[in-house]
Amino acid sequence: MNDVTANERLLRETEAYLHEQIPLTHAMGVTVESWNGARLVLQAPLEPNHNHLGTAFGGSLSALATLAGYSLLWLMLGDREAHVVVRDSHIRYRHPVRGTLRAACSRPDDAVMEVFRRQFNETGRARLSLPVTIEEDGKVCVEFEGTFVAMR
Amino acid sequence: MNDVTANERLLRETEAYLHEQIPLTHAMGVTVESWNGARLVLQAPLEPNHNHLGTAFGGSLSALATLAGYSLLWLMLGDREAHVVVRDSHIRYRHPVRGTLRAACSRPDDAVMEVFRRQFNETGRARLSLPVTIEEDGKVCVEFEGTFVAMR
Repeated sequence: MNDVTANERLLRETEAYLHEQIPLTHAMGVTVESWNGARLVLQAPLEPNHNHLGTAFGGSLSALATLAGYSLLWLMLGDREAHVVVRDSHIRYRHPVRGTLRAACSRPDDAVMEVFRRQFNETGRARLSLPVTIEEDGKVCVEFEGTFVAMR
Repeated sequence: MNDVTANERLLRETEAYLHEQIPLTHAMGVTVESWNGARLVLQAPLEPNHNHLGTAFGGSLSALATLAGYSLLWLMLGDREAHVVVRDSHIRYRHPVRGTLRAACSRPDDAVMEVFRRQFNETGRARLSLPVTIEEDGKVCVEFEGTFVAMR
């Protein structure tokens, strides 16, 4: 199996896991757009996620950003026995999102990941702060920062 | 029509408005539990809102808290021409929610509301910070604070 196929399978597996384990992701129509080992992008169509103004509902944007951080950490851990939960988050809605919701989360740099992994391996529990952005037409519409805890 | 009936009708109208305008609230099963002019409680069943651990999904808790602040401000304004949007929010997940999700938001005190109303009437735009809590069995499980903007 080549890398493209393996990556595509991982995306669909992650998506299926989300839909099965967290039913709201199914109602939201969340899909995994891409994951290259460093950056994850989740997306959701506007239609089930609009608000009273016809733009993306804040609750959907917040949920999608939370899922992006959660999924990135889960994919990076690569440990099916691990659980990830969100501890706190801050979100700033700068501009309305008028089309597809796309939340991007990038892997922290190696030094941060190294500390996180060491703590997780030693204690079975570690926390990580992850920024997520939701952009549209090259403009940052939503800034999110969440603290996630991984535990075994 | 007595007050109980009028209040009940307002709750159902608000619920219908949310379901119609913000489809995710329908998927989440959001209902308006109570509103006494000072305190609003929204609720949602666990079943469509659970996560991979069988407790309430952070995204659902965040969305419900956002809706509680949004709806309280909308009900207080009593102006069908006004729009309310969320500008930013912070949420802290202290304990998992294991049953029905219940988000409570209380009206700020008179002095704060007076400043808000004056600004809204004079400029057609005003912002308000609203705290929302999600409690279960007398324990605060989630603390949320959001800044909402009302505009005409």
